[in-house]
Amino acid sequence: MPIDGALLERRLDELYAIGAEPDGGTFRPLYGDAWVAAGQLVERWMKDAGLETRRDAVGNLWGRVGGSGKAIVTGSHIDTVRHGGRLDGALGIVAGLTAVEALLRDNGKPKRTLEVVAICEEEGSRFNTNFWGSRAITGGIDHVPDDIAAAMRERGLDPGKVAAAARDDIDMFVELHIEQGAVLEASGKPLAVVSAIVGTAHLELVVTGRPDHAGTTPMGMRQDALAGAAAMIQAIESIARSLGAPAVATVGKIRAEPDQINVIPGRVTFTVDLRHSDLGARNALEERIRSLCGTIASERGLTLDARAPQNRPPVPMHADVRALLKGAARDVGLEIGEMVSGAGHDAQVLAARCKVGMLFVPSIGGRSHCPEEASNPQHLELGTTVLMRALQKIAY
Amino acid sequence: MPIDGALLERRLDELYAIGAEPDGGTFRPLYGDAWVAAGQLVERWMKDAGLETRRDAVGNLWGRVGGSGKAIVTGSHIDTVRHGGRLDGALGIVAGLTAVEALLRDNGKPKRTLEVVAICEEEGSRFNTNFWGSRAITGGIDHVPDDIAAAMRERGLDPGKVAAAARDDIDMFVELHIEQGAVLEASGKPLAVVSAIVGTAHLELVVTGRPDHAGTTPMGMRQDALAGAAAMIQAIESIARSLGAPAVATVGKIRAEPDQINVIPGRVTFTVDLRHSDLGARNALEERIRSLCGTIASERGLTLDARAPQNRPPVPMHADVRALLKGAARDVGLEIGEMVSGAGHDAQVLAARCKVGMLFVPSIGGRSHCPEEASNPQHLELGTTVLMRALQKIAY
Repeated sequence: MPIDGALLERRLDELYAIGAEPDGGTFRPLYGDAWVAAGQLVERWMKDAGLETRRDAVGNLWGRVGGSGKAIVTGSHIDTVRHGGRLDGALGIVAGLTAVEALLRDNGKPKRTLEVVAICEEEGSRFNTNFWGSRAITGGIDHVPDDIAAAMRERGLDPGKVAAAARDDIDMFVELHIEQGAVLEASGKPLAVVSAIVGTAHLELVVTGRPDHAGTTPMGMRQDALAGAAAMIQAIESIARSLGAPAVATVGKIRAEPDQINVIPGRVTFTVDLRHSDLGARNALEERIRSLCGTIASERGLTLDARAPQNRPPVPMHADVRALLKGAARDVGLEIGEMVSGAGHDAQVLAARCKVGMLFVPSIGGRSHCPEEASNPQHLELGTTVLMRALQKIAY
Repeated sequence: MPIDGALLERRLDELYAIGAEPDGGTFRPLYGDAWVAAGQLVERWMKDAGLETRRDAVGNLWGRVGGSGKAIVTGSHIDTVRHGGRLDGALGIVAGLTAVEALLRDNGKPKRTLEVVAICEEEGSRFNTNFWGSRAITGGIDHVPDDIAAAMRERGLDPGKVAAAARDDIDMFVELHIEQGAVLEASGKPLAVVSAIVGTAHLELVVTGRPDHAGTTPMGMRQDALAGAAAMIQAIESIARSLGAPAVATVGKIRAEPDQINVIPGRVTFTVDLRHSDLGARNALEERIRSLCGTIASERGLTLDARAPQNRPPVPMHADVRALLKGAARDVGLEIGEMVSGAGHDAQVLAARCKVGMLFVPSIGGRSHCPEEASNPQHLELGTTVLMRALQKIAY
């Protein structure tokens, strides 16, 4: 195979070392020092591969080799979460770059314009935002918050010019990424094409009862907000289970007030993260959760208030890119299936402006966003080979 | 009736004003400025009533009228919780003082020594302690923590001398207190004699699962510590309900980690407050809770660790004091029943050294430890009258 697996691993190691934290993992927040150093390393690799590089107005790094027509783009994001792993984002950049480098070496200049991108931010780890880089590419940033503007200026970027990062000359974006879950590993397959990225809705539920003395209030005279919330959390889990995959519902945050060992909680606030690849199914999931939680509240003499701070629709991947990736796999002797991405990715934002598609490699033990994040090196090499073959089929 | 109800109310108002907080309620933490001012006010009332006053080594304030034999003591604590109400503690001091004052006025000197006490601390609102005053009276303080020692010195008290507060010359301690729950109000009775103070056990349960990505981890592959904790909280409520009154179990504090909207909680810590007036029944309650939570954990692939930071046995009130209080009520034409105290009181500590008993008045709506804490003024007057009659029967 023309992809040098050892080179892939070396590059991933080199990038992982930038932002390494003393207590494990790496951290490259947007516009931070490690973020700058990582960009410089990738830019050097791009130049060595024969790509023409540039920074756009928000700091996305582009490496281009000219051809005709709208661009075929591959890449991923360069920022990480705190204590992040070696592969999330980094893999898509290193694999895209290594694939394009191999194509140029073996096949010369492409007919169509090929680009590799290191997107500046996807994770939302430093500022109260995410998909910052891809939103800029789609022209989707209307307002630059003050804290981000200050950080941009420190890096020589003008917050007044973010609109200049928008592009309408991209035909296709294709990204190699780790799954970040354990579904693909459990299937025994080395790769999968993403059919859709789930849509995520976030709910914040506030259960209000009455704070009473834990000793003097008999069980039958209580309006215990936490006992009510516990019944709701149980119901939320049951509803998601009964709906079946890919429905998931997660209660990640909970806060009881007054939070004292000897006082019955008078108020409990908790969050629900709801995902499904089908918007109708997800709306049904949300509706059943709201309805059942409301019933539990009234049975217990509690009140329930719900806020929905986020509601992102599922995003199907483009049929052309899915077919291209499957054909490329077939070219290297592999039949691969499709799966839903439970995590969000830049592709879901870029889908507003171009054809998008993703290829997943299995995550060992499903671990991600942690120092244990890892994949089988053969899977990484195979994924990069299929990506390269797809770029070759479309751009040459 | 010889008790001046209007005087009772005026004195309660005057005491409530000391430590008043701008956002409601009052706060008189141990050795604070409001605590000092409240003690000065009570000392003046004691002197006006003809009592000889003194401060003991921890700051308990005693007002005495001599007689023979071991002392008959009435009173309560002068400290409050933050945003505390008008009656918790204050009532027992004001009622005891007003009752003794009326006895001295109408009946002259008692045969037996009578004392009114303003106990320095019961609530544990400032330092990590409670029953500070009553523990000192029983000689139960082995060690003065540094922060308390510093606060004592500021008030001219020598932390090296706390042992001097111990007394072995008290025959009986009797206290009027609000119920702090809604049981007595629901019964329609104006007063009740306390049969026992429940014993409180505190558990801290730690549920450990695995933190995973909320989007990429199917429902069937999760080890969700919060879903497990929710099932446990439900079970705890059911067990306490099925055991019946006076069993109560309360989950007051809960913390999920990592506490992120899009991460399945890998660890949840929560507390359980368990109370019953019968130690065997409470131990059975605790055992059933530990066992069922353990089963829930293993069914879900979670681990459960339990700590028991507190385990106080129930304390029965002395038969002599219960009979005395019922007889005193009968003298004023009232048949009163008994009830269990779900809250802790100084009487449970003093029981180690003397006969103890308590008389409860109903709390409106069961509210306590809050600015809404209130009782019917007629109930307060009646309770003070019965207390006075009991003191008369035993001391004259």
